[in-house]
Amino acid sequence: MALITETYLRTQLIKGLANPFPVTEGDKLTPAAADFLKERGIPLQRLASQSSGTLSLNLLPVGVSNRHVHLAPHHIDMLFGEGYQLTPLRELSQKGQFAAVETVTLKGPHGSLSNVRILGPSRGLTQVEISRTDGFELGVHPPIRLSGNLAGTPGITLVGPKGSVALPEGLIIAKNHVHASPDEAQILRLNNGDRILVQAMGERPVIFADVIVRVSPQYSLDFHIDRDEANAAHLTTGDTVQIIPKNAERRLR
Amino acid sequence: MALITETYLRTQLIKGLANPFPVTEGDKLTPAAADFLKERGIPLQRLASQSSGTLSLNLLPVGVSNRHVHLAPHHIDMLFGEGYQLTPLRELSQKGQFAAVETVTLKGPHGSLSNVRILGPSRGLTQVEISRTDGFELGVHPPIRLSGNLAGTPGITLVGPKGSVALPEGLIIAKNHVHASPDEAQILRLNNGDRILVQAMGERPVIFADVIVRVSPQYSLDFHIDRDEANAAHLTTGDTVQIIPKNAERRLR
Repeated sequence: MALITETYLRTQLIKGLANPFPVTEGDKLTPAAADFLKERGIPLQRLASQSSGTLSLNLLPVGVSNRHVHLAPHHIDMLFGEGYQLTPLRELSQKGQFAAVETVTLKGPHGSLSNVRILGPSRGLTQVEISRTDGFELGVHPPIRLSGNLAGTPGITLVGPKGSVALPEGLIIAKNHVHASPDEAQILRLNNGDRILVQAMGERPVIFADVIVRVSPQYSLDFHIDRDEANAAHLTTGDTVQIIPKNAERRLR
Repeated sequence: MALITETYLRTQLIKGLANPFPVTEGDKLTPAAADFLKERGIPLQRLASQSSGTLSLNLLPVGVSNRHVHLAPHHIDMLFGEGYQLTPLRELSQKGQFAAVETVTLKGPHGSLSNVRILGPSRGLTQVEISRTDGFELGVHPPIRLSGNLAGTPGITLVGPKGSVALPEGLIIAKNHVHASPDEAQILRLNNGDRILVQAMGERPVIFADVIVRVSPQYSLDFHIDRDEANAAHLTTGDTVQIIPKNAERRLR
């Protein structure tokens, strides 16, 4: 069931509006949306309600990442004490990944951010992911990078209960990306390394261009964005965004 | 003079890459950008350097709005004292508008924001514009609205040095929009009420879909976005974004 608004229909124009326009049982059109279709001579096509799932519809679930830290084992020791083990708080969408009970404080040249969540398990390299907004708070302006691509990035100081770490590099703003398992990728006709366009379908129909697709058996389908991107596109974890297909013709009316 | 990067060229793919690709005197291509064109068999077209201006190139200057308040005269009285006049601090891009020396504190159900700038001159209706991020801080979640469209929006409490105002409605997240004078609109082939696509050209090639064009002799060319949108698209006031022309064919390679 969906509420179909004129704004939503306008966002569909970029990839060409389906004609007839499919609606499933229980879908509701606002009066303005109904007028919008009528003005364009587009009839409705009523489909039986079924659990079509998101995969067949070029839709992706959204995962919003707040600022967080991945720690190398020796940095866990320095921040929390020798041999310390992180305590899982909740599982994340990606298999084996968890948000830990533990947090640290980030100290930058102009300010600090406390209660910054650690994500586990530990990694080879410590990496700190913040938003551009966070960067203004800290007074440091890291580049947009994919996870693990840390060469030449700025450092930051981490403070834990047992000590601190002055990281020489490893601070990034995460580049948005899609995670998918090989099966999910196949259904969505995506390949590892593809760069796609992804559009929010709500009050702010932002299109994220140049979104990189990462395919791995370890991954589950998710479009990862940071908090600035989520707020600019009015998205929340669990929302759905659509892939704009390659070679689609865009029409604005 | 411009530094042309591979990332920038990729953002151009959406509207089709110019072939030959025009560069003006002083433009520099990164090695990856030069390879990118070479791989596609696209030669460079060297244009004489000239002050082409932004208008002929479908480019718009960006104006980022931080949270701010427009006050009705009787609210100025209540917050700052009977007959108080706002003191201009600096002119804004739109004619006659100014940022005032005066600020207020916004009090929401969960938190407050201090030093929120007042923009002058006074208006018929008091209106408070915040970002979605600010809304989480205050604990209130206003809709995305164009300026002046306040029916059914939530209220907020304003606190000034001489008193406070419990506004019953008037809190919005501003919908992004383009201001243009009639001359500027004509050159850019835009009409009042047009809904256009606008793309950031930097590290985050976000496309803002459904951007409304407002044309008036009072206006000067500017693409107005809030701080969340600016951070998500890695934009700063004075940066330049491009209009994606209507009926352009989009190609992803």
